[in-house]
Amino acid sequence: MNVIKSIDIQQEILLDNDREAEKLRRQLAEKQVFMVNLMASPGAGKTSLLIQTIRRLRGKLRIGVVEGDIDSMVDSYKVADEQVATVQIKTGGACHLDAAMVKHGIDCLNLDELDLIFIENIGNLVCPAEFDTGADLKVMILSVPEGDDKPMKYPLIFSVCDALVINKTDYLPDPGFNPDALVQHVRRLNPNIEIFSLSCRQEIGLDTWCDWLERKVTVKCSC
Amino acid sequence: MNVIKSIDIQQEILLDNDREAEKLRRQLAEKQVFMVNLMASPGAGKTSLLIQTIRRLRGKLRIGVVEGDIDSMVDSYKVADEQVATVQIKTGGACHLDAAMVKHGIDCLNLDELDLIFIENIGNLVCPAEFDTGADLKVMILSVPEGDDKPMKYPLIFSVCDALVINKTDYLPDPGFNPDALVQHVRRLNPNIEIFSLSCRQEIGLDTWCDWLERKVTVKCSC
Repeated sequence: MNVIKSIDIQQEILLDNDREAEKLRRQLAEKQVFMVNLMASPGAGKTSLLIQTIRRLRGKLRIGVVEGDIDSMVDSYKVADEQVATVQIKTGGACHLDAAMVKHGIDCLNLDELDLIFIENIGNLVCPAEFDTGADLKVMILSVPEGDDKPMKYPLIFSVCDALVINKTDYLPDPGFNPDALVQHVRRLNPNIEIFSLSCRQEIGLDTWCDWLERKVTVKCSC
Repeated sequence: MNVIKSIDIQQEILLDNDREAEKLRRQLAEKQVFMVNLMASPGAGKTSLLIQTIRRLRGKLRIGVVEGDIDSMVDSYKVADEQVATVQIKTGGACHLDAAMVKHGIDCLNLDELDLIFIENIGNLVCPAEFDTGADLKVMILSVPEGDDKPMKYPLIFSVCDALVINKTDYLPDPGFNPDALVQHVRRLNPNIEIFSLSCRQEIGLDTWCDWLERKVTVKCSC
């Protein structure tokens, strides 16, 4: 007897997710809302970058945040303290956000009152890279103490991102982090990636990043 | 018509994995080999701890290593330079090692010549915690720059581990890392966990960790 069908579960899940992401992107485009998917390892500084960015773009862009966490609401309390509309998604174990989860979050926000939505993804360099969330821009953070060899070990996330933010430059010089070697590795995987170096803690280099992001949002929303 | 059956794919996968892990654990016990599953975020210091531990246990225990990576062999080259039997597993995208993958690695090692095998799992605080690899001991590393709030955000891994190694204590004092608060959080999740504080870079605190590990191996292998 022949095998009736071979079902690749992972492939089916990703295709379903791509369709859901595309729908979400269209919905946001109609409302002229720009969305950024922020990804990084645990502790690289996603929430810190979010807070510093919100403070600098206040009065220029109306910002909302979809916070992804496996458990706890510590990050969403910090972000909500910045007076931005914040929705918490608890995945209850799942290691990434997908488009359907983000859609749940977006449905709790008033899109008529927003220009820019940040997704703070689960702290993980692997699974989030595989799932389109419907965002217009994928941004990843790598922090200096993680070391400069990460592009070799987690190539997918460095390949799919539009921008890399190198955070915690206040830890430099660091024998485990050669900035030139890192940039070379990353550019080999992704020649067009934008790279920013900054320190959220010392508030250095943030304006260049915020100016670039503001231009991205303005260009898209005026199309 | 009634639904014939509801299949929970994740549950099935985990049950299959548990059976495979139990078989592997029995195989290692027969050969009096002890196995440690080492887990952490990217860049927390898994390879550094491995190398420092191998150097201190040389001549006391015969060590082998199963290196898990999504891509690249950088870590296994570093570990093999310490003259220990090293097997590289490239998961090609998978975000964790499971028992079947570890079994593939173990089958390449001569168990008659080993007392202790380390698994270096994929750098990830989420998925590796869900999969029993057949190891006798689960150890996780948290590094100071990651921050002290990680037990709130990744509770499962802190709950299932037998030991927590706090690495990069050379970064202390750090405003984002209160060691007492961290230990309190961790003990609330897992009252029996062993906790070690050390710096692989400055080679501080390593002997206490190595002595404890050596005792664990000796006690089991003399049963």
